[in-house]
Amino acid sequence: MSEQPKQPLILVTNDDGIEAKGIRHLANCMLPLGRVIIVAPDRGQSGMGHAVTINDVLKMEERSFPLAGIEQAWQTTGTPVDCVKLAIYEILGQKPDLLVSGVNHGSNASINVIYSGTMSAAVEGAVEGIPSIGFSLLDHSAQADFSGTSSFIQRIAAQVLDRGLPDGTCLNVNFPKLLGDKIKGMKVCRQSAGHWDDAFDKRTSPGGSTYYWMTGNFKNPDQGEDTDEWALRNGFVSIVPTQFDLTAHHAISTLNQWDLK
Amino acid sequence: MSEQPKQPLILVTNDDGIEAKGIRHLANCMLPLGRVIIVAPDRGQSGMGHAVTINDVLKMEERSFPLAGIEQAWQTTGTPVDCVKLAIYEILGQKPDLLVSGVNHGSNASINVIYSGTMSAAVEGAVEGIPSIGFSLLDHSAQADFSGTSSFIQRIAAQVLDRGLPDGTCLNVNFPKLLGDKIKGMKVCRQSAGHWDDAFDKRTSPGGSTYYWMTGNFKNPDQGEDTDEWALRNGFVSIVPTQFDLTAHHAISTLNQWDLK
Repeated sequence: MSEQPKQPLILVTNDDGIEAKGIRHLANCMLPLGRVIIVAPDRGQSGMGHAVTINDVLKMEERSFPLAGIEQAWQTTGTPVDCVKLAIYEILGQKPDLLVSGVNHGSNASINVIYSGTMSAAVEGAVEGIPSIGFSLLDHSAQADFSGTSSFIQRIAAQVLDRGLPDGTCLNVNFPKLLGDKIKGMKVCRQSAGHWDDAFDKRTSPGGSTYYWMTGNFKNPDQGEDTDEWALRNGFVSIVPTQFDLTAHHAISTLNQWDLK
Repeated sequence: MSEQPKQPLILVTNDDGIEAKGIRHLANCMLPLGRVIIVAPDRGQSGMGHAVTINDVLKMEERSFPLAGIEQAWQTTGTPVDCVKLAIYEILGQKPDLLVSGVNHGSNASINVIYSGTMSAAVEGAVEGIPSIGFSLLDHSAQADFSGTSSFIQRIAAQVLDRGLPDGTCLNVNFPKLLGDKIKGMKVCRQSAGHWDDAFDKRTSPGGSTYYWMTGNFKNPDQGEDTDEWALRNGFVSIVPTQFDLTAHHAISTLNQWDLK
């Protein structure tokens, strides 16, 4: 009798916290593809970027998860990147075959990738040599409708499980806020060169002290039709291969002409 | 009578907090080059990566700084990236001519760049179109000896003020733990492909709950002589041009051969 092929081990995390609707949706999408383990923050950690907890302690606990078929679910006091490290080095004691992060409630396209805890978890997976994907939907609402994303998520994840990803890369996948049958398809893109014009909403506490809320407007002068922002604006799912080598290789020759010896 | 040339405006920040020895050293190095404004976290923020404070309020206050000639010094409750945003959009109301971050107590070479609050402040400067440099010394000690770094810091900063930097890039400068006359010179490098093998030190609180401290060992299989790690190991200052476009451009053609339409 031949052995059953071993089921892939899939690690699911996010930055909106283990209670978020988006991670439940993503875990559900992964169930047909392998054994699913969830390790996620115990609360929202949006905007945490690639933060790691080195000056404080971490705690975690196994818990129930409202979805049949999940092998284990853990919540931690850490950031999304902490969750990836705890999962590999403390909970699993091995690297999963696939890491998926999200589905984020809100865009991680363009410059948002560098502020995103969702994408930092995927980037950390890539640093560990694990095929990793971050998924995000362009809808901040806690009750966002993720139903249109399922078939795309499963097609992308199945291919990544099958083929792996180029060394040193993960995928940044963003979905337009459209029902599934309105989505025109998928496009492999580059990160659009947008940025945030920040502003601070200055307020006074009842006790008389001044405090600020960060606000701002996203600006995108980059009109390239090969960008994630273009794809999303035109009804496509954007897929950006994303790397942790931050070297601006094209700038090395310029700098070698300076007085930097 | 001709007007005096306008002095450049230099923003100084860090991730070790406004009380750290490294930021005092860096501010001192900047004084001959222009008007110096300090906006830094009120406490250590190491490992914060590109975190921004979007789910909590920010506070800041002007304070004294133990160095004559500083034009303004502010401490904030935010991350290094928050400090850059507060400085530009709330304190200065304009973009500085130069942003310098550090000098960090500890290495930000190789993969450390993605976890680093020091470098995230510099990257945020680049996003804002400001010539920006992060400086770090390979010595974690609070009392680290920064004296050997002064002339290098001033030569690099003066050239960046003079020439600007290629669009979308900042500099990641690391110093070996050597006295100035032992440093062999500077090298423009790429980011070495190292990573951390993490581990968690599991402990029990007096009350009986389990908690963890993140530890780990840096591993660097990348033996390239064009890397920051090689330069530092061989007594050179490493200078890596660093960008916020995370697109793995070389992977786009590979992915276009997948079933991702």
